[in-house]
Amino acid sequence: MREWFLSELDLEYVALGAAILGTGGGGNAYLGKLRAWQELRAGRRIRVIPPEALKDDDLVISVGGIGAPTVGIEKIEKGDECYRAVRAVEKEVGQPAAALMTDEIGGANSIEPMIAAALADLPIVDVDGMGRAFPELQMNTFFIYGLQPWPGALCDEKGNTVVFTDVVSALWLEKLARTGTVAMGCTAGFALPPLTGRQVNDWGVKYTVSQVWRLGKTVMEARAEKRDPVAAILAQERGKLLFKGKIADVARWTTEGFARGRLEIEGFDLHAGATLRIEFQNENLMARVDGEAIATVPDLICIVDSETGRPVSTEETRYGLRVSVLGLPCTPLFRTPEALAVIGPRAFGYDVEYQPLGDYVMPEPVVTVRDLE
Amino acid sequence: MREWFLSELDLEYVALGAAILGTGGGGNAYLGKLRAWQELRAGRRIRVIPPEALKDDDLVISVGGIGAPTVGIEKIEKGDECYRAVRAVEKEVGQPAAALMTDEIGGANSIEPMIAAALADLPIVDVDGMGRAFPELQMNTFFIYGLQPWPGALCDEKGNTVVFTDVVSALWLEKLARTGTVAMGCTAGFALPPLTGRQVNDWGVKYTVSQVWRLGKTVMEARAEKRDPVAAILAQERGKLLFKGKIADVARWTTEGFARGRLEIEGFDLHAGATLRIEFQNENLMARVDGEAIATVPDLICIVDSETGRPVSTEETRYGLRVSVLGLPCTPLFRTPEALAVIGPRAFGYDVEYQPLGDYVMPEPVVTVRDLE
Repeated sequence: MREWFLSELDLEYVALGAAILGTGGGGNAYLGKLRAWQELRAGRRIRVIPPEALKDDDLVISVGGIGAPTVGIEKIEKGDECYRAVRAVEKEVGQPAAALMTDEIGGANSIEPMIAAALADLPIVDVDGMGRAFPELQMNTFFIYGLQPWPGALCDEKGNTVVFTDVVSALWLEKLARTGTVAMGCTAGFALPPLTGRQVNDWGVKYTVSQVWRLGKTVMEARAEKRDPVAAILAQERGKLLFKGKIADVARWTTEGFARGRLEIEGFDLHAGATLRIEFQNENLMARVDGEAIATVPDLICIVDSETGRPVSTEETRYGLRVSVLGLPCTPLFRTPEALAVIGPRAFGYDVEYQPLGDYVMPEPVVTVRDLE
Repeated sequence: MREWFLSELDLEYVALGAAILGTGGGGNAYLGKLRAWQELRAGRRIRVIPPEALKDDDLVISVGGIGAPTVGIEKIEKGDECYRAVRAVEKEVGQPAAALMTDEIGGANSIEPMIAAALADLPIVDVDGMGRAFPELQMNTFFIYGLQPWPGALCDEKGNTVVFTDVVSALWLEKLARTGTVAMGCTAGFALPPLTGRQVNDWGVKYTVSQVWRLGKTVMEARAEKRDPVAAILAQERGKLLFKGKIADVARWTTEGFARGRLEIEGFDLHAGATLRIEFQNENLMARVDGEAIATVPDLICIVDSETGRPVSTEETRYGLRVSVLGLPCTPLFRTPEALAVIGPRAFGYDVEYQPLGDYVMPEPVVTVRDLE
């Protein structure tokens, strides 16, 4: 392979793998996949490049959807929100983007930037700022390691564009963008402050487009070959089966632009007699058995259907579903004290020390700079 | 006089007259007056020009505070919010402002633009977009008669700047700016989309800086000469005494960035035995006696202390105050069907026909182009 152009099947893999890394949130990638297919059928291209292909001073804009996933599955996008947000940031900095990327590989934002990239005819970089999904903007490696928090741009389906030209912190960017999103109807397209190629390489979580593509492929192949898809996910991601059981209770409320709630799973098999409680804010934050934390942010707490390996998002959870709860190790970039201050359990209000779930192994890139030479 | 430079005493007049036209809202001009005094004492100038002094293609930016007056009297400004908002709009359109103005002469926004103008060394135009105060951004003559609703800029005391680069309507500008203001802590500086000199002359409510200056002077002179200040206001503004009595009840709540509520006044003298009910959203919207509307927006419903003529704002009303309620005619620019659709009683949810309170007389300008020649 010289260049990596995504096909409709590749997008199927990406959407499935990304939904698993969405840890219950990140928005539904299904609608995005259909819109990305539409772009491919209209003759546009979705091309992925490795971060090493960027020049140090290339401008890279990270873009995606912002809002409550519960609203995102009902309020259909116009389709150019993210594209217009990219153009607004380019205009503000007075430099065109060399490539686009996602800040959040988990969930819908794996595919959203691909649609904007297809419209702009720009490549997507095989990298993100989370290696998963997180509910708030400031919760990415770029802001944690020093990215200037402006300018960002917010666009809705009606044609409104808001540019955050000066913001005192990433947390203030989050606050202002979040309330703007609520005013716009709880979903919008958002372009983050631009990165240089150098910053993408220094601070990015690498090869996560490759990771979700391979993860989705693994699950679909396991299903086709009648192997256990849950075991296939765990093997692929070096994850841990945290719990297996039946969803017994769900409470969910959409407040301040977030889908918040908790759910209870009654154990089966090895876990018979025990109850797992999960709390979420768009994403699953904390898993406890009998009051004891067995997994917390920033590690990934993923709920999948025990039979099919299909990821179950927080907005889809309901009484009676048979699920497996998987714990996957997060990127080491999230395990430093400065990162844990932003995305560790205490940052979400839990008085619990972070206990790493195991060693992270960097994903293999599908395409390398050598392939491009 | 060749040019009109405002002195500390002039600012005293302006603040007092503007508070009367604030119709209960518009924010407290007292703090702004102190800050404007500070600018004069620092050697800066506040200069007023008539709208006829503008060239047709001069860029004029209307700027002021946005938020809940109840919060504005407690949360002190940094002082450069409006100035920075002006600079953000200038940067977005790529043209410097030739002059600044207020969109809302009633209340604090009479003086806010003067502080920004002192900092920028720009003149203030003797005009506004309301001839009073109104709670929402779209409620001005400029938007009603066709001003493009972008770009606007919002700045807080922390250093955050948000630019509304593309907005589908003035109502959406209001919604987005209002929620941004709430996120910023319920008060902020806001620069409206720029006007041309031609638009200012075509759509502006003229000579309202002169009007509030003269009104404040009238009240202070009446007090000094032991004449009835309420009678002096009514004579100066061709207004009508709607009611005289004692405040008997006040209910007030700050929601969605507004100070909303209602109050009851028990009648004295001519009005003994009757009760006047006033409802407000930052400003007094509707006055009823025994369920019958006796004055409504867009005409001005002003509450003043019966002894001193001191305007009583909605956040200062309290049980026991002896007040006179005055009705002043609004600009004819607000009495057209297209204006009433935005600022008439029905626009605020009242199923009442607007009955004009009397004829409006255009204020005399303190300074004319002839004075400047």
